[in-house]
Amino acid sequence: MTPAERAQLALLLEVASTPKPGNVDRNRDLDDLRFEHFLAGAVGSGEGLRMAANDASVGEAFECAVEGMSRQGGGNTQFGCLLLLVPLVKAAVEFDGALTPEDATRVVESTTVADAADFYRSFEHVDVAVADPPEDAPELDVRRGSEAIPALESQGLTLYDVMEMGADRDGNAREWVGGFRRTFAAADAICDDDGPVPDRAARAFLDLLAEESDTLVTTQHGEEVAVAVSKWAADARGDEAAAERLAEALVAESVNPGTTADITAAALFVALERGVRV
Amino acid sequence: MTPAERAQLALLLEVASTPKPGNVDRNRDLDDLRFEHFLAGAVGSGEGLRMAANDASVGEAFECAVEGMSRQGGGNTQFGCLLLLVPLVKAAVEFDGALTPEDATRVVESTTVADAADFYRSFEHVDVAVADPPEDAPELDVRRGSEAIPALESQGLTLYDVMEMGADRDGNAREWVGGFRRTFAAADAICDDDGPVPDRAARAFLDLLAEESDTLVTTQHGEEVAVAVSKWAADARGDEAAAERLAEALVAESVNPGTTADITAAALFVALERGVRV
Repeated sequence: MTPAERAQLALLLEVASTPKPGNVDRNRDLDDLRFEHFLAGAVGSGEGLRMAANDASVGEAFECAVEGMSRQGGGNTQFGCLLLLVPLVKAAVEFDGALTPEDATRVVESTTVADAADFYRSFEHVDVAVADPPEDAPELDVRRGSEAIPALESQGLTLYDVMEMGADRDGNAREWVGGFRRTFAAADAICDDDGPVPDRAARAFLDLLAEESDTLVTTQHGEEVAVAVSKWAADARGDEAAAERLAEALVAESVNPGTTADITAAALFVALERGVRV
Repeated sequence: MTPAERAQLALLLEVASTPKPGNVDRNRDLDDLRFEHFLAGAVGSGEGLRMAANDASVGEAFECAVEGMSRQGGGNTQFGCLLLLVPLVKAAVEFDGALTPEDATRVVESTTVADAADFYRSFEHVDVAVADPPEDAPELDVRRGSEAIPALESQGLTLYDVMEMGADRDGNAREWVGGFRRTFAAADAICDDDGPVPDRAARAFLDLLAEESDTLVTTQHGEEVAVAVSKWAADARGDEAAAERLAEALVAESVNPGTTADITAAALFVALERGVRV
């Protein structure tokens, strides 16, 4: 398999992994967001992922992947996953040997203002739940889409700069500017674990959720709920029945730790790059 | 989406559709053949499917797709699906307007001896359960792989000719030489049905299995078992609980109507080409 194929497989393995409390998984749909929307999203992401492996910029590849991902009826399925996967695919292709946090950091640090503009344009393809922008920079609200591009350009902000500004409020931005720390740690856990890869990924998801509150849960339900969800995830670790009950409860309450699922997908990609086989 | 993307999505929707008695589906694995093997098979098939849409011959595209599909640990996941999908993708690309049985027939009738050689080579990438060859043509046993190519060449047999020789014993070969009759009928059923596409595909699968005994079941368990399975499928139509029970029973007995699943995947592709959306 090529890095682009492994990234596409990572998207599919992520959604197939179960139980992944609060997320669509092999055994659970949300009300209007179903398993098949993620399958179509993974198929549609393929071209952008191949672009990332073929010398396109991070921004171009990401916007193409998001545009392809959005051609299904469920809305946003894998925007956050792709934000992590695109630079990781580029790092896997550009540097020899095992994919490292340093390789990934070199890719994201080399992003440009044009990449930032592509990132903002990507929000026009699909509705993404995001936190509010910094109070002192309302002109950089990602929800403005391409209307925010003149502000990016006048301030000379690269995509890395944009992620740095969001790192205190967004778990995926934190991965970008922090050497993909949680991604690589979860990849190590998947590599060291035994059994079918989706089962390993489900365990890695629960560990990630237990360790840190989820950005999307915080955005949609507030910090207190997010902290409680992480505590419940910690309690369910190592107890499959408890994890299943938590999955039922969170789906019933529409509490969706989507950022944790994004990092799980990125970790699956790194694990596949490091030799884990399905 | 492009035709190649729709074909890849059809592979994924097929395996996600449940209950699909006797087959891997969203809710069931077989002993050594699990859901994630089909996900990896669909990812690996992508390049061959894109070749089919980009002027490669049927044989070249099919061999590439099978080689890519086989890069996972479950063995044969989608050989038969790809045998139907590759000419259908070419037909969708080569002829304007709605994909028709006549378009598909024009593609398969134009196959060459070189396509037949590629088909035989494809058997070297993965173990495929097949019926015995015609008694008067042991030299054309597909299990011989590329060793059979001199016999193909000396007899001037195209891939269409090879399928014609197998049509009495193989449901997929029958689709090739019979205008993809069951594929298009099942596609019509999926188009006319309501609800999530995987649910429609599961109902189409049960109808197909009820209507005609499955080639793979006949090959592995004999004609009497295959006829019985079709009767049970007929009894379970329209009764979801009965279909679930049949799915449990067939998986427990390793009775795998895989050819019916192949036709379901092909029907999903035609339905997607005709405008069904996920």
